[in-house]
Amino acid sequence: LTRGRAWGEEELVRRIRRIFPVTDRQVEVPIGDDAAVLRVAGASRLVLTTDQLVEGIHFRRGDRPARLLGDKALGVNLSDLAAMGATPRWALLSLFLPPHLRRSDLLEILRGMARRARKHGVSLIGGNLTASKALALDVTLLGWLPPGVPAPRRRGARVGDVILVSGSLGTYALGLQLLQSGWTWRDSAAYKRGAGAQRSRAATRALRRHLTPEPELALGSLLARKGLVSAMMDLSDGLSRDLARLCQASAVGARVEISSLPLEPAAVAFAGQDEALRLALHGGEDYRLLVTVPPSRLFALKRLLPRHRLRAIGRVVVARDGIKLVDSTGRERPLPPSGYDHLRTPRARKRLPSA
Amino acid sequence: LTRGRAWGEEELVRRIRRIFPVTDRQVEVPIGDDAAVLRVAGASRLVLTTDQLVEGIHFRRGDRPARLLGDKALGVNLSDLAAMGATPRWALLSLFLPPHLRRSDLLEILRGMARRARKHGVSLIGGNLTASKALALDVTLLGWLPPGVPAPRRRGARVGDVILVSGSLGTYALGLQLLQSGWTWRDSAAYKRGAGAQRSRAATRALRRHLTPEPELALGSLLARKGLVSAMMDLSDGLSRDLARLCQASAVGARVEISSLPLEPAAVAFAGQDEALRLALHGGEDYRLLVTVPPSRLFALKRLLPRHRLRAIGRVVVARDGIKLVDSTGRERPLPPSGYDHLRTPRARKRLPSA
Repeated sequence: LTRGRAWGEEELVRRIRRIFPVTDRQVEVPIGDDAAVLRVAGASRLVLTTDQLVEGIHFRRGDRPARLLGDKALGVNLSDLAAMGATPRWALLSLFLPPHLRRSDLLEILRGMARRARKHGVSLIGGNLTASKALALDVTLLGWLPPGVPAPRRRGARVGDVILVSGSLGTYALGLQLLQSGWTWRDSAAYKRGAGAQRSRAATRALRRHLTPEPELALGSLLARKGLVSAMMDLSDGLSRDLARLCQASAVGARVEISSLPLEPAAVAFAGQDEALRLALHGGEDYRLLVTVPPSRLFALKRLLPRHRLRAIGRVVVARDGIKLVDSTGRERPLPPSGYDHLRTPRARKRLPSA
Repeated sequence: LTRGRAWGEEELVRRIRRIFPVTDRQVEVPIGDDAAVLRVAGASRLVLTTDQLVEGIHFRRGDRPARLLGDKALGVNLSDLAAMGATPRWALLSLFLPPHLRRSDLLEILRGMARRARKHGVSLIGGNLTASKALALDVTLLGWLPPGVPAPRRRGARVGDVILVSGSLGTYALGLQLLQSGWTWRDSAAYKRGAGAQRSRAATRALRRHLTPEPELALGSLLARKGLVSAMMDLSDGLSRDLARLCQASAVGARVEISSLPLEPAAVAFAGQDEALRLALHGGEDYRLLVTVPPSRLFALKRLLPRHRLRAIGRVVVARDGIKLVDSTGRERPLPPSGYDHLRTPRARKRLPSA
């Protein structure tokens, strides 16, 4: 994208929407959300998404057991369906196979994906194979949204709504740092020569989530069915970037309280408070849910979910106030979208901006 | 696929089917046909396929106007739906964007795809963007099969059925040779310095089809609705390979008559009879339909279609007789599957076996 690089992902998506205007009345949610929603027949709606893992961009050759690649290729798509409140059912897989890929690794990739598919009741119904220079796994996932349940979208946030996230942030980014600093994943645990038991436990927690993100399907479905959220999306590219997307779609701003952010405890332990904050704000691939909830529904939400299942991190404000971070003394500063842009920042996870 | 390369596409598909067994009763056609068929709701069935174009594998950088890449990325998927008798409706697009791609070329790719989509009533409803080293366009296409129409599959051919194809063969492969021998595509026509009018007309015909395959949607849909074919697929990887796939799926053999093969006239003109035959047998990407028809339905077929719309090229025989070519003196020789294998023969179109 020599010159196109100036665009970034959002601008390109806007242009794609202009080139492909949708006039089809069966399309309930078009390009621009976590997944598309189609009214196909009867009262149920079909939900569709596609996402890919590319060697050299999303992973490096040999950086993890092969089966975890297969697991994750499906996992990132499951997270998109979770963000729409949908129940996954069918998948298609495009495999880009390079000459260097070992047969045994390919089988392990497929087995890892099959295990994840079984866990969530997903059937692989089709796909395609192609030769390629780099390994890539491109999954298209289909699921259902039950009758009468509106699709939770990015554009529904209103001024005054509470902003919440479904778990700690920065875990994925910490896991990447751990791998880069000599930790490895062996026999379902993190290992580094000479590391003590406490650090090993913290590293294990972070690396497990780094390697196998757990899509929030049950939570996403519950929130959609109960109609509690005004907006919902998954956190794939970092809170700062994804929150900016939600605000843009809803034409609102946001105030995020630093003291309320659920920092990854292992990140605090390994890297200190400031670095943990930086990872929480700008580290991608946490695959938590980011939701907004009208104040009137907060009580119902609290009755429905265990404490801390969703953590309030701020409030929706008017668009002209922008997106701001607030510290414990009440001082504000802007929160620019500095997370992962799939076009502008290849390997952005290695060079995050400071918090 | 250092060691995996020994497998080839068919073996890998078999293994994928074993790793992902489908027990889902809503899946009417699973992995292994041109597209998957789902019973989603009501009597209509959803038909799904995915296919990709990869730089360095399916095209070379700058080898054609950018808009034709977008056109073809959708076109190859439309051809898969044509082979299932389906009517296309919705598409998702995964874009793999390399640093070298110019912004203007990207827009032209998208516009070319949008034009093709409009022509066939397809709405782009979603997709994803990723950075990549090489350009790739991965399309997932959805369509409908009308109530009561059985999906025409590869496995339905029976001994005695007539084998037919929907147009001349080897056109794509000839087009590739023309491009490699100095012909170019300018202002909707083939051009080479010093070439006469007759050769230019022949080259234009071949290059047009090479650059913009026309999916046989109307024919595929008609054949499915009228229930005239016992098996159907599209010719994407060369007659010799695709016929072998159809025979394998149906557990039959085939006798193909050389004199009946609809050789590309431009190939005969440019390269002679023998070379035209070689291209017809082993050249991929013609995107014609390959069908088998029981003798009892031949009369109905002839009443339905203009003469030569489908050309009989041979007969289905028992499996143990294999797949054979028959010349005008009645002499037989085996027809091994030597077309395009997506895993074994990158750029196979440059080095086809002799006919």
